[in-house]
Amino acid sequence: MRTDPSAQKGADMNFICEMPTRVIAGRGCVIEHAEEMKRFGSRALIVTGKHSARRNGALADVEEALRKNGQTYAVFDGAVPNPPIDTAVKGGRCAREEKADFIIAIGGGSPMDTGKAAALLACRDLGEEELFMKPYDEGALPIVCVPTTAGTGSEVTRVAVLTSAAKQTKRSVAGRAMFPKLSFLDGKYMHDLGRETTLNTAVDAMSHAIEGIFAKGASPVTDAAALESVRILSGYLEKMDHLEEQPLTDEDRDRLLYAAMLAGTVIANTGTNLVHAMGYNLTFFKGSDHGRANGLLLSSYLEFVSRSYPEKVRTVLNQMGMKDLAQWKGTLAELFGTRETLSEEELDRFTRHVQETKRSSYEKCIAPVTAEDIRRIYRESLPLPPESEAL
Amino acid sequence: MRTDPSAQKGADMNFICEMPTRVIAGRGCVIEHAEEMKRFGSRALIVTGKHSARRNGALADVEEALRKNGQTYAVFDGAVPNPPIDTAVKGGRCAREEKADFIIAIGGGSPMDTGKAAALLACRDLGEEELFMKPYDEGALPIVCVPTTAGTGSEVTRVAVLTSAAKQTKRSVAGRAMFPKLSFLDGKYMHDLGRETTLNTAVDAMSHAIEGIFAKGASPVTDAAALESVRILSGYLEKMDHLEEQPLTDEDRDRLLYAAMLAGTVIANTGTNLVHAMGYNLTFFKGSDHGRANGLLLSSYLEFVSRSYPEKVRTVLNQMGMKDLAQWKGTLAELFGTRETLSEEELDRFTRHVQETKRSSYEKCIAPVTAEDIRRIYRESLPLPPESEAL
Repeated sequence: MRTDPSAQKGADMNFICEMPTRVIAGRGCVIEHAEEMKRFGSRALIVTGKHSARRNGALADVEEALRKNGQTYAVFDGAVPNPPIDTAVKGGRCAREEKADFIIAIGGGSPMDTGKAAALLACRDLGEEELFMKPYDEGALPIVCVPTTAGTGSEVTRVAVLTSAAKQTKRSVAGRAMFPKLSFLDGKYMHDLGRETTLNTAVDAMSHAIEGIFAKGASPVTDAAALESVRILSGYLEKMDHLEEQPLTDEDRDRLLYAAMLAGTVIANTGTNLVHAMGYNLTFFKGSDHGRANGLLLSSYLEFVSRSYPEKVRTVLNQMGMKDLAQWKGTLAELFGTRETLSEEELDRFTRHVQETKRSSYEKCIAPVTAEDIRRIYRESLPLPPESEAL
Repeated sequence: MRTDPSAQKGADMNFICEMPTRVIAGRGCVIEHAEEMKRFGSRALIVTGKHSARRNGALADVEEALRKNGQTYAVFDGAVPNPPIDTAVKGGRCAREEKADFIIAIGGGSPMDTGKAAALLACRDLGEEELFMKPYDEGALPIVCVPTTAGTGSEVTRVAVLTSAAKQTKRSVAGRAMFPKLSFLDGKYMHDLGRETTLNTAVDAMSHAIEGIFAKGASPVTDAAALESVRILSGYLEKMDHLEEQPLTDEDRDRLLYAAMLAGTVIANTGTNLVHAMGYNLTFFKGSDHGRANGLLLSSYLEFVSRSYPEKVRTVLNQMGMKDLAQWKGTLAELFGTRETLSEEELDRFTRHVQETKRSSYEKCIAPVTAEDIRRIYRESLPLPPESEAL
């Protein structure tokens, strides 16, 4: 028998935690459990992008499920990557015009976030500033999600991340009303997902799990989910360079979806912190994919938090089966190949930008963050452009 | 790096899972987070028993929290152990008469289950048969729970277990509408809980976790929660015989509450199965405490499932730090002292009773259960009365 039950990792029993989304996982679950959507009303607005949901079969399955239920629907397929606020506003207007009772968002993070924000905007008119002002605990259409990438975790969070042209960054609309009521996880929709998207989304999920572990809002519940997620995801990272010879099976995809969903439940409670705050600049100003941007920063972030929390970092590395930070750094370096560069001017500007998002982002990290820390993580992660080196 | 990510325990990615209750844990959390109750309305009905919530301070804290919020309340302190249907009906009527917008249930499983059923019955009149007929997904008052024992898990489940005089057993009223919206976990309310209640409730929680692992509805999510719960609870079992010399601290109580809550999230998804189905007879006909009844049956149950699932049983024993089933059996035997006896007539009758609850209970176990299995588990767990031995 164990003799020291009080020696729990993450033993702090002072927390707030919720994960209200009903998750249904399994092959064919959208159609098999179609009746679960009946309670949301008689008419749905499906929010998705132009192509992938048609190609991977998710849209057809959702349509069949709705027909089976005797529910009608309209399709808004205007979702685009890094969804602008405008698109969500259009989605909301479309939901109103179509008299939709609920929203079904199909796709990766962008369609899901567009759909979630549209569910809110369908119920009220909000200007940009207003939109980001407060948590919306009530007053959105019910949301159903069908993720077709394993990364964002948006299928279980109360946040939609939109791109603000005015503020030149990503901003979060959030509130309990935006928790999806239901999410369907079926790895078959990811059957044809290419190496780059698979890698970038998996690294995004990994970043959620890791940032969640070093978040002020972490709890024993989120720690357990985060460590399990890290364990599963890291097992797949080394497979990423052999996808052509050894493609992932649909069952592998199920596990990636599961791990991403777990990491989603983590950030639903802790939020993201420094990696995401810093990564947004790489996406907004340099066009780096969101997951990749986080991945580029992740090992230097771990090095940063290890100064204050070496034990926790060891626990994370242990879950990954890594002997030290150097090994993890090497693995990520190999996966990402040639990195984006960062000029001194960009370094200054991005650092300022991150500092300006203080309250909503990096202050959620358990380690105190200074401007110097931000600069160092950027610089360690991204080299100077070649011409600068010549100076 | 891990090389076989597919070798996950509980790898079946075919599941339905939800845990919608918002859980707030920590010392003083009822008052500190009082404002979380504002959204449920302006008037509460507090459902509790006659004494313990007054003694342990939980009632006073809830009253202070409501006053802080400017909310009014009435108190229904008629909850009793193994709550009869009538009491829940009275509670529901009281909520209606008092025009309560929401219910706050304070106490162990009985007050919480009374409160949860009252929240439903406040919104509709239901006869006994009707009450148990269907899942109630809508139409109950919002429920807040403040558990003052660490066992039942009712603070995070959608079930209220009531005692039916007509059917001579316990029956479950269930539905999504009965998930508590909010639960506050604070170990300080358990400060003075005696050895017997502490042990019996902990063993009840242990039984939830273990039955959940051997349930058809188990998933990777519930398995992770169940194993973590088992790990924490087993660490406390051996402390149970030294509580006088080494009383549990409030922090120990926090961990027990946490473990019981985790086990509650498990049965919220899997239900209980054979142990509970069998234990109810010991409670109803022989007056055994509910947790103790489960505990008496638990090692023979594990032996039973180990025939079909030896690997899973080893995983459970490993979490407990036990080398084999015999050691676990010995530990429980020591904790429970002299066992209740079971005559041949009782054995027959109880076995029949369990068989009659087939669909609602033991069919949820992954191992097929025969009448012979039920008889054997009863007999292995409870000796014949002394006079029978002399025959």
